[in-house]
Amino acid sequence: MLTNDPSGTAHGTSPTDGLFDLGDFVLQCGATLRGATLAYKMHGTPNANKSNLIVYPTPYSAHHSDIEWLIGPGKALDPARYCIVVTDMLGNGLSSSPSNTPAPYDRARFPVVTIHDNVTAQHRLLTEHLGAERIALVAGWSMGAQQAFQWAVDQPQMVERIAPFCGTARTTAHNAVFLEGLRAALTADAAWDNGWYDRQPHRGLRAFARVYAGWGFSQPFYKRELWRQLGFSSLDDFLIGFWERRFLRRDANNLLTMLGAWLRNDISAGQRFSGDLKAALGSIRARTVVMASETDLYFTPEDIEYEASLIPQARYQLIQSVWGHQAGNGLNPVDSEHIDQQLKKLLQE
Amino acid sequence: MLTNDPSGTAHGTSPTDGLFDLGDFVLQCGATLRGATLAYKMHGTPNANKSNLIVYPTPYSAHHSDIEWLIGPGKALDPARYCIVVTDMLGNGLSSSPSNTPAPYDRARFPVVTIHDNVTAQHRLLTEHLGAERIALVAGWSMGAQQAFQWAVDQPQMVERIAPFCGTARTTAHNAVFLEGLRAALTADAAWDNGWYDRQPHRGLRAFARVYAGWGFSQPFYKRELWRQLGFSSLDDFLIGFWERRFLRRDANNLLTMLGAWLRNDISAGQRFSGDLKAALGSIRARTVVMASETDLYFTPEDIEYEASLIPQARYQLIQSVWGHQAGNGLNPVDSEHIDQQLKKLLQE
Repeated sequence: MLTNDPSGTAHGTSPTDGLFDLGDFVLQCGATLRGATLAYKMHGTPNANKSNLIVYPTPYSAHHSDIEWLIGPGKALDPARYCIVVTDMLGNGLSSSPSNTPAPYDRARFPVVTIHDNVTAQHRLLTEHLGAERIALVAGWSMGAQQAFQWAVDQPQMVERIAPFCGTARTTAHNAVFLEGLRAALTADAAWDNGWYDRQPHRGLRAFARVYAGWGFSQPFYKRELWRQLGFSSLDDFLIGFWERRFLRRDANNLLTMLGAWLRNDISAGQRFSGDLKAALGSIRARTVVMASETDLYFTPEDIEYEASLIPQARYQLIQSVWGHQAGNGLNPVDSEHIDQQLKKLLQE
Repeated sequence: MLTNDPSGTAHGTSPTDGLFDLGDFVLQCGATLRGATLAYKMHGTPNANKSNLIVYPTPYSAHHSDIEWLIGPGKALDPARYCIVVTDMLGNGLSSSPSNTPAPYDRARFPVVTIHDNVTAQHRLLTEHLGAERIALVAGWSMGAQQAFQWAVDQPQMVERIAPFCGTARTTAHNAVFLEGLRAALTADAAWDNGWYDRQPHRGLRAFARVYAGWGFSQPFYKRELWRQLGFSSLDDFLIGFWERRFLRRDANNLLTMLGAWLRNDISAGQRFSGDLKAALGSIRARTVVMASETDLYFTPEDIEYEASLIPQARYQLIQSVWGHQAGNGLNPVDSEHIDQQLKKLLQE
């Protein structure tokens, strides 16, 4: 199904699925994932001097196919002009994950993965497989935004632009409490069995989904019943048909692995910045547009604007939307258009 | 422990616990709770013409002892001047509840209870036991606010004033989604056993508590680590020591019964208003002050202000606080003082 194309040469304009062999991949936590892989999908072709590479990492729980709405002819991420590499997060079920890693690092034993680990893996894909020396843009929503910030900090000479939307460079305390609620809901199901289940703990996954539902959109989104625009027939139909469906597709350990990366997300962690967020944000050299949704309940505009103010070349843009965090997920055409316009502007700078 | 004082006559100034016998109490859902009881505590003494009665109903999961912070000498609710009747909600473990009702209506079989049922029970206590003809004030926080609105609608000739704070007259859609998340987290625990547990489903209760934690206070509350003011040593200490403790004390079926009342809360439900919230709010004759916390995540200021605008004699007051919904729970002295001042002002009108 997924193929590894080791040629590193030109691809056609039809998107290419790939599975990059990371070999023995040493994680920040000290574990080695032997035979680790990074899944990705490439839209477009690298140009001669490889100046048209865009990295677009997946957000929480998503596969690369879930975020292709931002890519297309006439859009900022136009495959005719750019080579857009959509990278799958470690733990998302396509890249190395609890669900697809053989023993002994399988399932509940899958090690702790960080945003930095993800960016390290992506950097290897871009440099070793595609021969990249610079990246025109790293763009991403939510956990994709976290990866964009991390790219800018880890590879300041390489990353020309970043466009993180609806995400922060360090997970805030309240955001962590939200995540603790999700984790507690999922793991309250005895069928979870500390990660050693043979069948997915569906009660836990459904609880996880219902907890998520309150946070994912805003209060006025629910008041105005905007879920009708997404084709749902009642509030409960939306909770089941949108939210439960979204997470029942996923593996519980995978969700917990990605949740762990989100919880630990902090570009200032480690020896280089020793937790000094101002210094870490101040080190970013990329031209930056940071976007926030006005009604986002866990990546609040206040938090995002504060971080943006500490990045030397950053522009802060508010998405005026009642779609909450999901304003950045391609569901509401007006919000998607706003994001696309900001990306176009940034790519011209 | 609890005593039933059927005399209906003067009480001393020391608070009096009571357990009012509701007899065969018919609920809105059609069930009859035989030998139903309403627990309460009286602070102060009814005066000769019984013009000094204040009803102060408990909020979600609380016992009467949890909300006494609003009562005291020099405060608006001064027992030297007023007779403050703190009523325990049906389902809270002191009034008739799944945990204390004998078979066949015990545990998972405990019937659906509404806010209207609660107010009906309280009305009987006030009229049959205390001989009340009018109520100077019904004040309450959160689900206590729901009961205040319901009192004003059910007994327009009797209720002179209401002061609902951080609560709405009808549960909003987003608030319902928040509640669905809580319910799903609790019931994901197989130990819950559809309510037929012999031991409390503690994993479910802890998950419930952790989900609640993100909603109960605001994002800036967590950012500023204001839990330190409550004596907690770390964020996790707060999640365990405050939140898990709060709900581990309670019975799972009791929590679900009260949650059901909250979900169904709607003063416009039924034949009289047929779901017309404007008409129901417009029917309120009581002098009203409605308060909202600026950072409340589930009883939002927008929702509360909207409802207040539809009540003829209502004043809307914003509590400028980063304590979120908990601004109304007596934890932050500045917020408590604000509420007390508003109650004093209202009682002089």
